[in-house]
Amino acid sequence: MQIEIINTGTELLLGRTLNTHHQWLALQLGDLGLRIQRQTSISDTASEIISAVSESLGRADLVITTGGLGPTSDDNTRSALAELLGLRLVQDSAVMDRINGFFALRNKSVPPHASIQAMVPEGGTVIPNDHGTAPGLAIEVPAGKFRLTRSHLVMLPGPPRELRPMFINQFIPWLRSQFLELPKLDVRTLRTTGLGESWVEETIAPQLSGLVTEGLEIGYCAKIGEVEIRLAMVGERGAEIAGQAEKIVRRLLKNHIFGSHTDTLERAVVELLKSRNKTLAVAESCTGGFLGHRLTNVPGASQVFMNGYLTYSNGAKERDLGVPSKILEEHGAVSEATARAMAEGCRDISKVDYSLSVTGIAGPTGGTDQKPVGTVFIGLAGPDGCVVEKNFNPYDRETFKFVTSQQALNLLRKTLLEVRMISG
Amino acid sequence: MQIEIINTGTELLLGRTLNTHHQWLALQLGDLGLRIQRQTSISDTASEIISAVSESLGRADLVITTGGLGPTSDDNTRSALAELLGLRLVQDSAVMDRINGFFALRNKSVPPHASIQAMVPEGGTVIPNDHGTAPGLAIEVPAGKFRLTRSHLVMLPGPPRELRPMFINQFIPWLRSQFLELPKLDVRTLRTTGLGESWVEETIAPQLSGLVTEGLEIGYCAKIGEVEIRLAMVGERGAEIAGQAEKIVRRLLKNHIFGSHTDTLERAVVELLKSRNKTLAVAESCTGGFLGHRLTNVPGASQVFMNGYLTYSNGAKERDLGVPSKILEEHGAVSEATARAMAEGCRDISKVDYSLSVTGIAGPTGGTDQKPVGTVFIGLAGPDGCVVEKNFNPYDRETFKFVTSQQALNLLRKTLLEVRMISG
Repeated sequence: MQIEIINTGTELLLGRTLNTHHQWLALQLGDLGLRIQRQTSISDTASEIISAVSESLGRADLVITTGGLGPTSDDNTRSALAELLGLRLVQDSAVMDRINGFFALRNKSVPPHASIQAMVPEGGTVIPNDHGTAPGLAIEVPAGKFRLTRSHLVMLPGPPRELRPMFINQFIPWLRSQFLELPKLDVRTLRTTGLGESWVEETIAPQLSGLVTEGLEIGYCAKIGEVEIRLAMVGERGAEIAGQAEKIVRRLLKNHIFGSHTDTLERAVVELLKSRNKTLAVAESCTGGFLGHRLTNVPGASQVFMNGYLTYSNGAKERDLGVPSKILEEHGAVSEATARAMAEGCRDISKVDYSLSVTGIAGPTGGTDQKPVGTVFIGLAGPDGCVVEKNFNPYDRETFKFVTSQQALNLLRKTLLEVRMISG
Repeated sequence: MQIEIINTGTELLLGRTLNTHHQWLALQLGDLGLRIQRQTSISDTASEIISAVSESLGRADLVITTGGLGPTSDDNTRSALAELLGLRLVQDSAVMDRINGFFALRNKSVPPHASIQAMVPEGGTVIPNDHGTAPGLAIEVPAGKFRLTRSHLVMLPGPPRELRPMFINQFIPWLRSQFLELPKLDVRTLRTTGLGESWVEETIAPQLSGLVTEGLEIGYCAKIGEVEIRLAMVGERGAEIAGQAEKIVRRLLKNHIFGSHTDTLERAVVELLKSRNKTLAVAESCTGGFLGHRLTNVPGASQVFMNGYLTYSNGAKERDLGVPSKILEEHGAVSEATARAMAEGCRDISKVDYSLSVTGIAGPTGGTDQKPVGTVFIGLAGPDGCVVEKNFNPYDRETFKFVTSQQALNLLRKTLLEVRMISG
């Protein structure tokens, strides 16, 4: 099925708003086994909307527009497309009742132009909006009008908090009712860290080749500090084949996989700590709080995350973590010995089961020949001792922080999974 | 001038990558007084590239493509567009020398397909790439080929860290050389925090109405915790009128303005601390490290940011900051008294000039009738005493952290500007 997306909104063309609809819709449609062929952003102007939509209707089976359904003067999508299709706009009393109810519930009078949102192109289908006043609209465009076969035009509202639930709760069932041939798709997404994309591919692809000949699709998505594997299979045997593929990948990559779907590494760590009834504290130098920030983004982190020390200065490393001044003088703040002393000091002072320490050179300045910008030591102290990992992350400051925190969280995660033996 | 952007890349259509090029280019072009008329995303396929670009060349004076200039099999932009324009690809020796130099510098042998990047459509202009191997290309499309007047086609590389410096350092001078009629535009962007968008508009708009009649454009952009004001004026009197407008806005909004252009609040705070030779420490509970993270994102923060305490648990608040257990029992961890004891304890232990403390309920759980989710106390201890601000930020967890950190940084910034008197 050919699908095109048209995002309307002058704010998109001015760069005032980032177009997140496109990616979100692409991912949602991808989970249905569908792919967008083209995406276009245009202004709010009626003539622009008419020309872009008529071009898309000449190519695609399904054209989805976003935006321009509200009551203000720059909301032109509904009227422009009714004009393009030669359809009269008629008031839908059910929609009008919903709009009146929306304002009544909020003890507000109905604003003068709100009723525009109850106007529906004749023959169109209303897609109810549970989070706002402007409903979505679906119109079947007859064969011969823009191309030889019929197509569908769907208008969705612009605000993400209206569009997203409407898409999932209303649009997808509508889509299934219109396109009976909609492919049945089973998708498994597995997320790994600590591995390179090519290593992942070389390890799993040969073992999956049999399933690929049966129709399995494998996708790799390498982000900074993470490789995502997407296993997708269309058809009646979707669940069976995708399930087999998932088993194979899990067997091959073992605990390099930290989660599936939208899991995050910090959530995996917090859940592991909870399940093992262990507590954690952090001692951060170069990450400056980012490690604590990630951990405390997980709701319920307070059950396992006790506290942290941002020991940016050497004085703070001595005072708060008990790092001996001799170590700082002899080895420097960015050293294995300092990372070890920070982790052990943090664990002992905080009276926690585990502590993570990070000390490195985030840059852009402060590097030397021996310790260039990007050098970082990560310490993990646990009940049985302490390990220190040395890494080299020569990136810009924020990427450095992210990659380093990813390595620290993964070191702890693997230790909790008892892969890595802790030596004293 | 009619401008269209075409972003190529199958990853965009699959939703694997968020299209940030579009917004970035729109903002850059906006600063030159130019506006994008249409943006299109298409796959890597040669036929798709050819059809989208030929459509755009039929409409626009300038068509900019991004992506598809690299050496791999899915990099089709260069060859597809040479085909579309009927131009032969010839090797450019200067580009080949740069590619060879690029790999020599990194002690790597030149990969087999790298030389493809030195192929230039005959008559095309090379836009050097200072951060990668694929140069950009600019081609003048003669009148009569796609429309009655000539147009320009510019191909930029896909990776942001290559595209962005190329756009600023190479593309803009090229654009000025080609389009002598480029409007002269003066833009001033002022960034405020702590004010509502409508308050800002009601305060400044009446005072700017005279300049608006002369052609001044005012734009407001409300983000979470921030309102940005854009003052733009086209023409010979641009600098004069925009300058007058900036003076008026600065007089009206005073130190609610924390910076201009791409300044951040954390940078403003770090610069103020540096200029006043003052040091800072933080004591964070509910923000969990995010405040430290923002401060340490500023290069050179180590001159003024000494250390921090992430006292997530009550035990840590007592042990690390000396918050009396009596205060925690009587007032609770989320209270004015605790925020004050945290800030004062942090200042005294850290021996810094200023300390910020944050304690609140980020949610989604943990709220009560008296202290609902979103309640937060922000303490600032300085040389002369301590103030505590109570705020209500009923958002999701990450937005809560951002807004709270914004309020804390702004409290310190205003204090450093000596607006706010500190009482003991």
